[in-house]
Amino acid sequence: MTLINHKFTLASRPVGMPKRTDWTYGEEPVRELADGELLIKILFISLDPAMRGWMNEGKSYIAPVVIGEVMRALGIGQVLESRNSRFQVGQFVSGRSGVQEYCISRGDGLMVVDTRIAPLPVFLSTLGMTGMTAYFGLLDTGRPEPGDTVVVSAAAGAVGAVVGQVAKIKGCRAVGIAGGKEKCRYLLEDLGFDAAIDYKSENVTRALREACPAGINVYFDNVGGEILEAALANLARGARIVICGAISQYNSAAMHGPRNYMSLLVNRAMMKGMLVFDYADRFGDAAREMAGWMAAGKLKSREDIVEGLATFPETLLRLFSGENIGKLMIKVAGPQST
Amino acid sequence: MTLINHKFTLASRPVGMPKRTDWTYGEEPVRELADGELLIKILFISLDPAMRGWMNEGKSYIAPVVIGEVMRALGIGQVLESRNSRFQVGQFVSGRSGVQEYCISRGDGLMVVDTRIAPLPVFLSTLGMTGMTAYFGLLDTGRPEPGDTVVVSAAAGAVGAVVGQVAKIKGCRAVGIAGGKEKCRYLLEDLGFDAAIDYKSENVTRALREACPAGINVYFDNVGGEILEAALANLARGARIVICGAISQYNSAAMHGPRNYMSLLVNRAMMKGMLVFDYADRFGDAAREMAGWMAAGKLKSREDIVEGLATFPETLLRLFSGENIGKLMIKVAGPQST
Repeated sequence: MTLINHKFTLASRPVGMPKRTDWTYGEEPVRELADGELLIKILFISLDPAMRGWMNEGKSYIAPVVIGEVMRALGIGQVLESRNSRFQVGQFVSGRSGVQEYCISRGDGLMVVDTRIAPLPVFLSTLGMTGMTAYFGLLDTGRPEPGDTVVVSAAAGAVGAVVGQVAKIKGCRAVGIAGGKEKCRYLLEDLGFDAAIDYKSENVTRALREACPAGINVYFDNVGGEILEAALANLARGARIVICGAISQYNSAAMHGPRNYMSLLVNRAMMKGMLVFDYADRFGDAAREMAGWMAAGKLKSREDIVEGLATFPETLLRLFSGENIGKLMIKVAGPQST
Repeated sequence: MTLINHKFTLASRPVGMPKRTDWTYGEEPVRELADGELLIKILFISLDPAMRGWMNEGKSYIAPVVIGEVMRALGIGQVLESRNSRFQVGQFVSGRSGVQEYCISRGDGLMVVDTRIAPLPVFLSTLGMTGMTAYFGLLDTGRPEPGDTVVVSAAAGAVGAVVGQVAKIKGCRAVGIAGGKEKCRYLLEDLGFDAAIDYKSENVTRALREACPAGINVYFDNVGGEILEAALANLARGARIVICGAISQYNSAAMHGPRNYMSLLVNRAMMKGMLVFDYADRFGDAAREMAGWMAAGKLKSREDIVEGLATFPETLLRLFSGENIGKLMIKVAGPQST
């Protein structure tokens, strides 16, 4: 029986917010494997703000998705067939999957997932790239000291929630900025943040001044725009700003630069960009440490799982409207019964 | 005989470019010294872009000048009278002088100047705060490695010229951005920069791409605005941006933030602010090293000296119109004949 692969390919480069017609939802039969290849049935697809950037033309840290190509995505799947000695049928693997039902891989960059450690979706969230981003961005770039005040934006998102919890584990005060009452409640009550600021109903600059009377030591930025400016206006001397993302800007035609960046001079502060891929050789150690914190109940992982590959365009937009709490992903299929 | 002190006091907080009427030019008799005080006859006054910031209300790294107070300035003078055992009549000293002819000090922050090392004006330029700013900003914040490409804006200014020359001494390529043909000629022919970009006649982004084919490793920013954006657009991976000033912005009502700051993420780069006062305990060592480079002919110091205290408002504006080459200062008086 020939398998049919449904997939989203990039149809056009969006201006502003992407829409369904920027992709083509198509199907094609799955071809035969060559030597060294394996066939993966995709179970979960990770939805990430970075996907918006991959749709743009131009130089970045990674080449843009080519028009006509399967939309780039990280995912988790199960090996259906293998002509690669490193992978066995039935194993779960994570890596680049694309927004589709099946993918054929040569195994490059694929990691075997051990489901005894955590449920599958956790390997796309806290134990996956988002968790690694939070871990290395905070600890390696932000370099928090015990007693520091750590502020994170998009704090109820996949990266932000881990940043705040790891800050607490490291003996810091954690202050989260998020949109809406429910997200703020989640930060305070479920995740143990020390303070939460609702940017939809509060003046963030003023709220940060109140929540951080001695200033911000580490600001982990996922959003850019006016919230970055509010943080810059409240830095402590020697502060570190981790530039991880700028989701408020990804769909804008013109980026908004932080007008008060001279606060870096006044406060002898620094702003530094980070990319998780640079830490690939340390992912294993970080995942083991994070899994330990999860087992000890110090680190909670939350996933926001939407069913059905076909929902991809609309589900992706939930990231930009701020509707999700926790790691957003699509469940494409259930594991193969064996 | 009673001495009369002429002085500029702050009359109002300017909006945009300062004008003569933002100060009052007045006079008053010099009072008697109290115990512990010394009277300094001011010989040279340093004109610095930072003076514009000191005129603004609001929190910064230093309190604003109070309305009615003598305008803050660094200067060099000679001790006329001393009731302080640390200072003797006839000695030359540098420190905060204010924009005036005489000042009374308790000696705090004053340094004795040794005229055997260099002529007096050099202690306000290469061996003074501007030289120290270049030295510590480049070496401590920029951390250039031999072979790195170092780019500096306002390169023909007092700080920029030292940055480029120290970069060369440290085995780097030095690329200067300055306004006008004569400044570019000065950088290339007199100071030994490897490349010079005339922002008045060239597209800086494109010119940087040509002058720095492997990208910018260290960018020392004195100007902000679009030139900072041009540098951000040409960073090498792991680049360091030293935020030293933003002279293009000091007279603007609304600061222009760098719209492409996400280049920090793409290039895993950092942007860090520095203030020279933090390095006070290392000024002595730095000045000795710089004096050695000057004696060896590796480091040239150029001063742009305007005669007459009364010219202060118009002379200060030359900084913002970019008219000066080298360190701008006012000669208030000649040394006392002894």
